[in-house]
Amino acid sequence: MDLEALRVDERGLIPVIVQDAENGQVLMFAWANRASLERTLAGGRMVYWSRSRQELWRKGDTSCHAQHLVELLVDCDEDVLLARVHQNGAACHTGARSCFFRSLAGTPAGR
Amino acid sequence: MDLEALRVDERGLIPVIVQDAENGQVLMFAWANRASLERTLAGGRMVYWSRSRQELWRKGDTSCHAQHLVELLVDCDEDVLLARVHQNGAACHTGARSCFFRSLAGTPAGR
Repeated sequence: MDLEALRVDERGLIPVIVQDAENGQVLMFAWANRASLERTLAGGRMVYWSRSRQELWRKGDTSCHAQHLVELLVDCDEDVLLARVHQNGAACHTGARSCFFRSLAGTPAGR
Repeated sequence: MDLEALRVDERGLIPVIVQDAENGQVLMFAWANRASLERTLAGGRMVYWSRSRQELWRKGDTSCHAQHLVELLVDCDEDVLLARVHQNGAACHTGARSCFFRSLAGTPAGR
């Protein structure tokens, strides 16, 4: 499958779910554009599009918490990506391993 | 945390990553609004906002593939949700267990 075939939104962006390849933990959520995906595939490290800074953002360049791509999957509609990664250190800017550390409802059994 | 505190986008929507609570597999990606979250929390079954049909969509009402909420988490920025669910049957409309069944790059080791 060609990156050109991916369905991006009106901003040229596609959602990326980032999952720890070792234990299946969902680490974070980000946005990519085609340029960031090309850089990711060329270099093996996750590169996103920062909507707040409006620039390419290679995860770990300032935090040292790089993400090494293990597998990149696309969903049935070709408009969402799932990146399975080796995460160095914390995925979250708060220092937490995962950005999803607050429970709103239910029980954390099995997480 | 109150649902009112969640940061929705300009359409009133928030992304939802849906994960199998049993084995950690990422099943699908959808969008919710506050009304769908209220229905989800009240009834215990996942309710989304269908962007294509522009209506609330309780997963499984036509497919029988209901999703029972186990835990709902919010990310550090309060603008993305992670729903850990018990999935009846297939999450994907293709009949696949997960919508993420196509690999674009890398190796599926460990999935």
